Amino acid sequence: MSFTVTILGSGAAIPTGDRNPTAQVVKVRNRTLLLDCGEGTQVQLRKAGLRIQKINYIFISHLHGDHYFGLIGLINTMHILGRKDALHIFAIEPLKRLIDLQLELSNTTLVYPLVFHPIDPEINRTIYEDEQISVSTIPMNHRVPTCGFLIQEKSGLRRIRKDFARSVKVPVEYYERIRRGEDFTDENGKHYPNHTITDESTAPRSYAYCTDTAYHEPVIPIIRDCDLLYHEATFMEDKSADAKAKFHTTAREAATIALKSNAKKLVIGHFSARYKDSDGLLREAQEVFPETMIAEEGKTFQV
Amino acid sequence: MSFTVTILGSGAAIPTGDRNPTAQVVKVRNRTLLLDCGEGTQVQLRKAGLRIQKINYIFISHLHGDHYFGLIGLINTMHILGRKDALHIFAIEPLKRLIDLQLELSNTTLVYPLVFHPIDPEINRTIYEDEQISVSTIPMNHRVPTCGFLIQEKSGLRRIRKDFARSVKVPVEYYERIRRGEDFTDENGKHYPNHTITDESTAPRSYAYCTDTAYHEPVIPIIRDCDLLYHEATFMEDKSADAKAKFHTTAREAATIALKSNAKKLVIGHFSARYKDSDGLLREAQEVFPETMIAEEGKTFQV
Repeated sequence: MSFTVTILGSGAAIPTGDRNPTAQVVKVRNRTLLLDCGEGTQVQLRKAGLRIQKINYIFISHLHGDHYFGLIGLINTMHILGRKDALHIFAIEPLKRLIDLQLELSNTTLVYPLVFHPIDPEINRTIYEDEQISVSTIPMNHRVPTCGFLIQEKSGLRRIRKDFARSVKVPVEYYERIRRGEDFTDENGKHYPNHTITDESTAPRSYAYCTDTAYHEPVIPIIRDCDLLYHEATFMEDKSADAKAKFHTTAREAATIALKSNAKKLVIGHFSARYKDSDGLLREAQEVFPETMIAEEGKTFQV
Repeated sequence: MSFTVTILGSGAAIPTGDRNPTAQVVKVRNRTLLLDCGEGTQVQLRKAGLRIQKINYIFISHLHGDHYFGLIGLINTMHILGRKDALHIFAIEPLKRLIDLQLELSNTTLVYPLVFHPIDPEINRTIYEDEQISVSTIPMNHRVPTCGFLIQEKSGLRRIRKDFARSVKVPVEYYERIRRGEDFTDENGKHYPNHTITDESTAPRSYAYCTDTAYHEPVIPIIRDCDLLYHEATFMEDKSADAKAKFHTTAREAATIALKSNAKKLVIGHFSARYKDSDGLLREAQEVFPETMIAEEGKTFQV
């Protein structure tokens, strides 16, 4: 079952024609999560062919504008299009006040339930959990309270044997249940114990999303052994003084976090508008951590 | 001296890849005004090659999101880029509370003065005036308090005679003063009375911006004889019930306002996302008012 991350914005504070501010869509076990929501995110979702009403969970890392100025527009468009499903937003509490005020000013009563979950970005804690995935906060070191998010599968799903799938008619809705360990009974009443039709599960995977932050080693034990790490890399080493002053990370530092935490792969993003292309950032990171890739609008990464 | 309107967004409530929400830049007598500021306006400004720091005055018609969700992002980018000039915002008072809360949440103290001018959208009143232009409110009939804006030159500038301009070296900064009626003394001390070097002024021009509103004849005496009228035309007549229910105007109704107010030219915009192209809207309006044009992202109209 796929576990993917689609980049909607790879830029830092100032949106340009080429780079949008931060937002990512994570698809995991049929759930669609949005991580951050910079200005223009709803248009980026359309361009990437993602359906906005599929998003049920939004996680906001911190209240700098390039991470949330697109949220109210998305909430509003979901409303205009007649959304029915609840929308869950995880962020620090003051964002709720802001959303409420914006809705009040336009005299809007949402047609769907908006459920706000206040989080404390300063401690590492599980903030969302269901039978298949969990999401935890990763405290960052930035100028305002900020956290990243660690998204983990709970356990790998069992793999349905090909010979069984070919010979027995299984309704689509049963696939996931069988992969989760249930037995199956076909339309003639024939019973198949789960261990006779599936093989050992794949290992559970994890995705760590780390933005915005200064170089911050306390994240390492939290994200250790993740399958994919996204880490901000606003600057290169030539601007390491800027990075320090603004509580951001250089490409080399992001790669160092990936190396020390034993990540399998690294994606870097949140590039300052002063870098016209990302070649230098990629080269600098790959010197430390070869399995580095570049965030780019519309690109999808497998976890 | 040019008096132009550049369209940054021609769409209605939902931004799509093709149409942006409402925003327009008006350049008049070396002043740059922004009318409304939907999500994505700062990127639209870049795409149109307009410099965001040139904008000194922003007028917000009402607090539906497609007319102001881009404002905080623009304010923030002006700050990050180190703006020095004051920024004047004209809108209903609650918008000030919202801006203050957003700045507070990101711990931002702006590096430039933001001067907020509360307006009453329900009465026709001059809200900005200097020696060369004035801006007045045009009360609209919408679901929340809303006004359009009438931008008028105070009097036409005198026209500098070509033979004088060719024969005498005039520093650039004197051109506007001469056109406003001042005499000129050249570097040798020779004095030129104004009436000997200029001709009669051109007639003062006016631009009327009317959005969002139901068909509303009380605007007619306010905008009478304007050189250019922008009027919303969210729907065509086939959706006139929708137009009424949502307090919007059809293309035919927009053209009727242009006709009855004796406008010289009409631009229609704020098109519902259900219209894939604007041909039908244009045809419908031109049947009533032939001098109708279509708003389109990046297009500039002469007033």
